[in-house]
Amino acid sequence: MIRSTEILDGGRRLAVRWDDGTASTLPAVWLRDNAQDAQSRHAGNGQRLFTILDVPADIRIAAASTEGGGLALRFAPDGHATRFEADWLRCHAAAPLRRAPGWVRDGLELWDAGLTGHLPTASWDRVASDDRALLDWLDAVRRLGVARLAGVPCESGALVRVVERFGHVRETNYGRWFDVRSEVNPSNLAYTSLGLQVHTDNPYRDPVPGLQLLHCLANSTDGGESVVVDGFAAAHRLRDADEAAFLRLARTPVPFRYASGDAVLESRFPLLGLAADGELVEVRFNNRSLGVPALAEDEIEPWYAAYRRFAALLELPALEVRFRLEPGELFIVDNRRVLHGRTGFSGAGQRHLQGCYADRDGLLSRWASLRSRLVAAPAAA
Amino acid sequence: MIRSTEILDGGRRLAVRWDDGTASTLPAVWLRDNAQDAQSRHAGNGQRLFTILDVPADIRIAAASTEGGGLALRFAPDGHATRFEADWLRCHAAAPLRRAPGWVRDGLELWDAGLTGHLPTASWDRVASDDRALLDWLDAVRRLGVARLAGVPCESGALVRVVERFGHVRETNYGRWFDVRSEVNPSNLAYTSLGLQVHTDNPYRDPVPGLQLLHCLANSTDGGESVVVDGFAAAHRLRDADEAAFLRLARTPVPFRYASGDAVLESRFPLLGLAADGELVEVRFNNRSLGVPALAEDEIEPWYAAYRRFAALLELPALEVRFRLEPGELFIVDNRRVLHGRTGFSGAGQRHLQGCYADRDGLLSRWASLRSRLVAAPAAA
Repeated sequence: MIRSTEILDGGRRLAVRWDDGTASTLPAVWLRDNAQDAQSRHAGNGQRLFTILDVPADIRIAAASTEGGGLALRFAPDGHATRFEADWLRCHAAAPLRRAPGWVRDGLELWDAGLTGHLPTASWDRVASDDRALLDWLDAVRRLGVARLAGVPCESGALVRVVERFGHVRETNYGRWFDVRSEVNPSNLAYTSLGLQVHTDNPYRDPVPGLQLLHCLANSTDGGESVVVDGFAAAHRLRDADEAAFLRLARTPVPFRYASGDAVLESRFPLLGLAADGELVEVRFNNRSLGVPALAEDEIEPWYAAYRRFAALLELPALEVRFRLEPGELFIVDNRRVLHGRTGFSGAGQRHLQGCYADRDGLLSRWASLRSRLVAAPAAA
Repeated sequence: MIRSTEILDGGRRLAVRWDDGTASTLPAVWLRDNAQDAQSRHAGNGQRLFTILDVPADIRIAAASTEGGGLALRFAPDGHATRFEADWLRCHAAAPLRRAPGWVRDGLELWDAGLTGHLPTASWDRVASDDRALLDWLDAVRRLGVARLAGVPCESGALVRVVERFGHVRETNYGRWFDVRSEVNPSNLAYTSLGLQVHTDNPYRDPVPGLQLLHCLANSTDGGESVVVDGFAAAHRLRDADEAAFLRLARTPVPFRYASGDAVLESRFPLLGLAADGELVEVRFNNRSLGVPALAEDEIEPWYAAYRRFAALLELPALEVRFRLEPGELFIVDNRRVLHGRTGFSGAGQRHLQGCYADRDGLLSRWASLRSRLVAAPAAA
């Protein structure tokens, strides 16, 4: 796979010509720091055994040869010898694509109202007992940011068992889980019968919970339908229609605030979170807890215009998926991507949900670990 | 405090002249969206009762008058009437300062080796039983990103009681807490007797744990001293010495990775995290789990040069505070700001620490809530 190599600039760089005719130029410092040999990496856990300060500042390649499909290197002045697999090198040497602000990670599938009736739904019995069924369900959460479970026992706290199947509960001032039902003196408007505009939960928290689960114990009211919207799809619509508005929301941190009882929670984030290289990584949107934006005078009206435009997109029927959560059903959302809300409901009857937060790292770790174990295995019948 | 007001642009804006001679121009949409009256905000929890889409797109100020030190407004076309306190308005109308990239939040105190011997240290007995002592200790964590406790019982899991005094444990694949001691087949290099370069924990996690506690149960070895460095102070040194290097580290996401046993954890963040408006919000630095940076060829060497320069700053004796953790002592770090490490230790004797993660939101909420309750009260003797 490596056709030839050439040491350049007195060893500071190595030119590698691949057998498809393309070439890479790899700096010595990158090759040395990313050496994968047993002196460089711990055999058991793969962690790097040295620091960048252990790499001589004048590190250079003293000798290079292709052997057995790989690349053997000797460095100077430290004399370290190592070997790279050609496939590994090819894969890791690739420069990242230059992408427009708002790009999303490979593997995500953006959706709209077309997902209505097709929300991935698994049975808790299967997910609880079958790793392959669990993998498929976690994969739906990873791709779509939303999935459902049916057949979850209508018992208080049952949703914690669901979380413990793939990760860890994020405990907050609301407890390990919390009741969502109409209350006389609500500490949160969620605990009323009011409709709730689609939103992400707890934007006033840093870190914000990455996952939210809502489990239905009772729902005999009129109304109280659940609504979910893919915030990344809505953000892309905004970008395509009005890039200036998209960038304004992304570049303007605004405060979020919640204070009730013993909790005083404040954060400052843009409604649309971009990574340093423009990746769209987060939507924070909650009309109830948005604080007072501190903006220069000439930025206030453009920001509000962009906010209004994004809010209007989030209420487009073409983007939303509605469903009625029945007792024993649960849904999970990626709370940094998918917004959820509900229609108002009547005072007659009962609507009782329980909610719980968790973090995405646990879910994605479980997904990756199951995938590496099961992906070659036949799918469960 | 308000000298006069004038309705501008057919009601789209209000000019407010303050009694110190300065003036603000406040858009109608900002005033309407931030109305604090009982129709606009829930009396119990302060949450906003309407959405931006409930505010007419052509919202304007129909009438304005100053009364009793406040500002009374009537809007059109919705006819909504509200009243603002002048102090509230003055405070929230102020535009943010324009600040250079890397600015840090008010109230943080950056430190260097001068903190040696002055690390805030409280006794667990006091912190456990006295809210004022707890507030002081939490305030040190907020300001400095590091504090110690003495007199924590040398019992397994005791550090969880410390966390529960101010917030919530972040459970991870390492458990609710974990043992840090030399092991034969370590899943992490922390579980060896090797020295560890100063680092932040778990940069491969998203969200990264905001707080780490390390509690000493035994330390009879030679060596094994603890080291802490203020990553924000180091980042400022880098910025002052080489702004291009600072910005390069801030603008370049790099991968972090940990895979061992059942966990496969990956993230992508810059070493220096800036908010959208340049606020320095995070340092992620860990030589063991830094993955392979995917960079354009002409960016690799400059990135490594900046990384090396920052690493060298982090090892400057002028920046580090060393101390020996004795049995019954515990230290806490803001894991998104303060790096910690240890010197190597001999095989003779025993060194046994327990670690635990928590999130900053809980700590800061407890701090803010205690402060609002106690700050006017006399300090405990």
